[in-house]
Amino acid sequence: MRQAKVHRIATRAPDDVSGLQAMIGDGRIDPAGIVAILGKTEGNGCVNDFTRAFAVSALKAALSAHLPPDAVAGIATVMSGGTEGALSPHLIVLERGSATTSDGPALAIGCAHTGDLAPEHLGRMAEVWMVAEGVAKAMHDAGIEDPADVHFVQIKCPLLTAERIAEAEARGETVATRDTLKSMGLARGASALGVALALGEIEAHAMSDAIIGRDTSLWSGRASTSAGVELMNHEIVVLGMSKAWSGPLVVDHAVMADAIDILPVRDALRRLGFAADGQLTPAERERLVALLAKAEPGTAGRLRGARHTMLDDSDISATRHARAFAGGALAGLTGTSELFVSGGAEHQGPNGGGPVAVIARRLPRSPEGDS
Amino acid sequence: MRQAKVHRIATRAPDDVSGLQAMIGDGRIDPAGIVAILGKTEGNGCVNDFTRAFAVSALKAALSAHLPPDAVAGIATVMSGGTEGALSPHLIVLERGSATTSDGPALAIGCAHTGDLAPEHLGRMAEVWMVAEGVAKAMHDAGIEDPADVHFVQIKCPLLTAERIAEAEARGETVATRDTLKSMGLARGASALGVALALGEIEAHAMSDAIIGRDTSLWSGRASTSAGVELMNHEIVVLGMSKAWSGPLVVDHAVMADAIDILPVRDALRRLGFAADGQLTPAERERLVALLAKAEPGTAGRLRGARHTMLDDSDISATRHARAFAGGALAGLTGTSELFVSGGAEHQGPNGGGPVAVIARRLPRSPEGDS
Amino acid sequence: MRQAKVHRIATRAPDDVSGLQAMIGDGRIDPAGIVAILGKTEGNGCVNDFTRAFAVSALKAALSAHLPPDAVAGIATVMSGGTEGALSPHLIVLERGSATTSDGPALAIGCAHTGDLAPEHLGRMAEVWMVAEGVAKAMHDAGIEDPADVHFVQIKCPLLTAERIAEAEARGETVATRDTLKSMGLARGASALGVALALGEIEAHAMSDAIIGRDTSLWSGRASTSAGVELMNHEIVVLGMSKAWSGPLVVDHAVMADAIDILPVRDALRRLGFAADGQLTPAERERLVALLAKAEPGTAGRLRGARHTMLDDSDISATRHARAFAGGALAGLTGTSELFVSGGAEHQGPNGGGPVAVIARRLPRSPEGDS
Amino acid sequence: MRQAKVHRIATRAPDDVSGLQAMIGDGRIDPAGIVAILGKTEGNGCVNDFTRAFAVSALKAALSAHLPPDAVAGIATVMSGGTEGALSPHLIVLERGSATTSDGPALAIGCAHTGDLAPEHLGRMAEVWMVAEGVAKAMHDAGIEDPADVHFVQIKCPLLTAERIAEAEARGETVATRDTLKSMGLARGASALGVALALGEIEAHAMSDAIIGRDTSLWSGRASTSAGVELMNHEIVVLGMSKAWSGPLVVDHAVMADAIDILPVRDALRRLGFAADGQLTPAERERLVALLAKAEPGTAGRLRGARHTMLDDSDISATRHARAFAGGALAGLTGTSELFVSGGAEHQGPNGGGPVAVIARRLPRSPEGDS
Repeated sequence: MRQAKVHRIATRAPDDVSGLQAMIGDGRIDPAGIVAILGKTEGNGCVNDFTRAFAVSALKAALSAHLPPDAVAGIATVMSGGTEGALSPHLIVLERGSATTSDGPALAIGCAHTGDLAPEHLGRMAEVWMVAEGVAKAMHDAGIEDPADVHFVQIKCPLLTAERIAEAEARGETVATRDTLKSMGLARGASALGVALALGEIEAHAMSDAIIGRDTSLWSGRASTSAGVELMNHEIVVLGMSKAWSGPLVVDHAVMADAIDILPVRDALRRLGFAADGQLTPAERERLVALLAKAEPGTAGRLRGARHTMLDDSDISATRHARAFAGGALAGLTGTSELFVSGGAEHQGPNGGGPVAVIARRLPRSPEGDS
Repeated sequence: MRQAKVHRIATRAPDDVSGLQAMIGDGRIDPAGIVAILGKTEGNGCVNDFTRAFAVSALKAALSAHLPPDAVAGIATVMSGGTEGALSPHLIVLERGSATTSDGPALAIGCAHTGDLAPEHLGRMAEVWMVAEGVAKAMHDAGIEDPADVHFVQIKCPLLTAERIAEAEARGETVATRDTLKSMGLARGASALGVALALGEIEAHAMSDAIIGRDTSLWSGRASTSAGVELMNHEIVVLGMSKAWSGPLVVDHAVMADAIDILPVRDALRRLGFAADGQLTPAERERLVALLAKAEPGTAGRLRGARHTMLDDSDISATRHARAFAGGALAGLTGTSELFVSGGAEHQGPNGGGPVAVIARRLPRSPEGDS
Repeated sequence: MRQAKVHRIATRAPDDVSGLQAMIGDGRIDPAGIVAILGKTEGNGCVNDFTRAFAVSALKAALSAHLPPDAVAGIATVMSGGTEGALSPHLIVLERGSATTSDGPALAIGCAHTGDLAPEHLGRMAEVWMVAEGVAKAMHDAGIEDPADVHFVQIKCPLLTAERIAEAEARGETVATRDTLKSMGLARGASALGVALALGEIEAHAMSDAIIGRDTSLWSGRASTSAGVELMNHEIVVLGMSKAWSGPLVVDHAVMADAIDILPVRDALRRLGFAADGQLTPAERERLVALLAKAEPGTAGRLRGARHTMLDDSDISATRHARAFAGGALAGLTGTSELFVSGGAEHQGPNGGGPVAVIARRLPRSPEGDS
Repeated sequence: MRQAKVHRIATRAPDDVSGLQAMIGDGRIDPAGIVAILGKTEGNGCVNDFTRAFAVSALKAALSAHLPPDAVAGIATVMSGGTEGALSPHLIVLERGSATTSDGPALAIGCAHTGDLAPEHLGRMAEVWMVAEGVAKAMHDAGIEDPADVHFVQIKCPLLTAERIAEAEARGETVATRDTLKSMGLARGASALGVALALGEIEAHAMSDAIIGRDTSLWSGRASTSAGVELMNHEIVVLGMSKAWSGPLVVDHAVMADAIDILPVRDALRRLGFAADGQLTPAERERLVALLAKAEPGTAGRLRGARHTMLDDSDISATRHARAFAGGALAGLTGTSELFVSGGAEHQGPNGGGPVAVIARRLPRSPEGDS
């Protein structure tokens, strides 16, 4: 049997890998088992946020001391910029190893890489299908058969650059957008719809090129996607529950309908055995391994009828406002600010809301196993 | 008997007084009864936030159609800039009138103005004593005898300008600081300590000029202070419970120990009859009239041990981060984003936390009156 | 004969009208002669810049003490937010009166208001034609026949709001864009093209709905346009030279090809009698009455081949960067920072550059009048 | 004889070392000769600007392919964040080699490292003396005897951290400030005064601990200092003219009295053989190798009497405004935006102004050598 390990490591700067190195050094992390590293870094999370690349650069340099180049390149690194409010910079290291016990079902981690996407397919149904197939492969890799057992799908997808657009147009193709910033949103959206397709949340006939990035009523409740310039394929990590895995970790998910819709998250926490009566206690916070959430400003400019000013603020980007506020709501619920709240939630949860995944250590079972 | 009325009015822009005018127009508000108007406006809440002055200008122009100049000038206007995250711009109008029933104790509103403060006394014990005396007067005006019945004291205090400093120095006096921005914090802090003195939260011998603005262990749990350039005295509004008042409104308060310390606020809500089980229901939100809170970034750069980046962010001021994050936590608890969360919490609540007041409509009493 | 007066008045805050009031008070300005007031205010010049409205509100209140409401409403007020770098907040009051001498040609000021624009015409050729007709009227009002004598056309144009779009669509019409922010750029661009049409800079057959806001090769070298929510028509102010006017003021213009293309401006200064050898001397600066310029970041992300980062900066909007930088270049040339540098230069000057107008007091003529 | 080489290399991102690598690859740069690398990176130039460390990290990794660790560590790397306006990110590589000709005097580059500074000496006279001695050594290293031949001294100095303060206090010492951000300004100021002392610009008896960071009337016209957390000593690079050096490069300097005081810079350009008549021509720009300048907002809030708003802007830090504006003025003069304009000018030039160094290729001499 396999066992998933998830390590949450605080960082003191974007390039701080001392925590990771210490855990590798004392054997708590086996670098060969790392399949993905997610990170919150302290840049603005927007176009000119170089803290993400700086973090990836430092992580790769650190891992290169332990792994061959191919293995380092095979690790998915998803950095999310923006620790607004009191959100706290940290890394989440996903590791796979052999189980020491046999007490599943438990957290399962599956990975897949798609082939390279042609630029003209980005943000279109071809990308949706490609991702859906990749999610199916990652589920298989995780030993998960039932889509209902999948709780979170983290995807790193490509984006368009001037060069890529030129290359496609030189071949007589057209691209979904010539605006490179916009292409990030389209790729995130198409990838999220790929998740929705793979998990049966939306049927294929409801989708078309025309709805991607436009119809906010179509969304996945379990997708979290992020665009990066350094790849043309998709790196897919599936988190779910599987009987083929054991160990102390479990995962569940919720969908927030808006930035302060914490009750579904509370319910997910309760399903995982937390009292979640107002706020997790210090003891409960020890059991909370990681919380991953998507946040965005609702496009209507209102939250439950009250006007918000996020979309009209030319000093602070709306995504930063949204992460701070939803981050505050989730920190109020969990009692911790070391939360992976990221932005850019196209087709990921309803307009203004987003999916949330909770990874926790399960409660100790009673001897009779009847807990 | 007297009766307090509190009106929360959404605004569409800093100078939007249409809601206030409509309520005056249809008789829901009697302009002659208005004693104070608090407002959240959508500027940055920092030095170059002109939305506050714009709002005050519009309010005074609107009220001038109904009241003589003296009466308009007598209304305390406390604008707090900064609706970060999804915090929603709004006005809170405090009105006093005659009671139609006799069912107190109920919310009581008391007002007082101190005399003008000499610039050399600003941010020093002389200001603390002046404010303490003013709070006592405002309590008397409210018909509150026991300091324990006071739940919130909103104060508008003066600040130093180059002219005021020059005037004091011309008389051979020294000022607490020649940095005008810093003088705002000192005045807010001294005023808060004045509240603490009046309410018996801190004894006089524990205070001195040297601790003002420095010793964060000394604070009031019920003060909310704000500095403005347009006055040299103090406008003091006391909110509390008094048997001399009746009507449906009640008030209570809590002290948050940090930006996400929502449990004391939940407890205050429960004391006011809310279930507050995770989040107020839509029906409960109807009963919530106003929530006023102070938020600030903790100076240690940590929230419950986790590093935050608010104090090192040169793109967004720390006060904006703090309002967004604490605002999110409080909105998660209450289910609404129309919250009066303001910054600048010197000696108002513990380092990184702040006082919170909740004004609510009381639950209908059972016929026997034994609830 | 008529005479134009131009007053440049420093302001201490967005709502500071003390300088204007003083000049009215001592007779230097006759309020009845004011036709337009331009102002640089210290907001961000973007969506949530309320300093513009605050300034207009204060100006209208001040003028209302001297003029009937209709006259106040008839004065065009064009506030431009953004005093980045050391740009200095100020007002430019344009006044018309009777000449005391007869020594033209001199600065001429003409005004016109178009009728209301239907929302479906905004940003389209119908607006271009409407503005062109208005410019012709304003030229007539100024007594200018030859378009070559026009040096600057300042226009305040409308924008779309959700309500206006809905109204047009209710009538079965379509609008040029449903993005209200984008509508500002389209209206500014269409208005600038209207100027180009009226002045013969571009012929009508070169224009169509499709090129508005898209073809940056089409531009006026004398248009400066600004969109405001408070009007649905166009306020047009033409500045030029006319023999029907006398007095000490003259005007000329230049077109900057990029943000640091100061040589054409130097040449305009020289045509107006300035040595302009490196930087205006203090004595020359006394003769410089006003400089009005448009600045914008070039869309190619390059300035003379060197990469700039304005368009990728998610912390500071590109328009703010552009004003600061072009403002620095123009201040280096003129030796003063009290310059009216505004953003949003669609079809106003070439991509990355912009039109510049200089108003100056003419050099004293030699006794023989043969200068 | 020795020869200095200066390479200005555009970068596409903070970690872009492709230009440097290409020049090393084709022999234009000998990595063993590099003594210092200065860089403008595109962060905010303030506390949370990680583009500087990212650039240094990439530079060191690139150089490690060519040099042993000790040699890499010996290269001074001075990254200045902030390319506001159209300022363009670039590197300036300072290289020393053997001369191929003997046609000095020419640009000379001298280096020195001081010993480690004890934390309690930072920002105090002990640092001033230490730096003065280091500058003397660097002059000697450059073969410059007369201080009048020194035109620019670039220094990287240490700063205080919580750990360093604690270490000093554990030894019973006090530090100049416990505010780590403030310590950067004090160290920059003390280092600049060290330059002034070494160059005879200020005599020692005019200085004391008390004036450091306070008396803005004391300044060096040739110092440019920058604080970094990664060192406790000082890296000193002196640029001047020496007969012991030959080659085509020359250097001169100027002092700007305020942000738009370009005339002294024009005069320096003229001394270097540029016509500098309004703006450098494209041909002249080929001869301009590098321009290094310090910019800062004047503390009086005025530029030549006109109010600026830089110091009151809570959205954009004043240093960013200042770099953009002074950068615009200098770009207007030189016709290029690839300028090394950096902030933090304590005791470097007068209040609101700063030193400027110009490195250029000399004009070809006439055969008779009598130019």
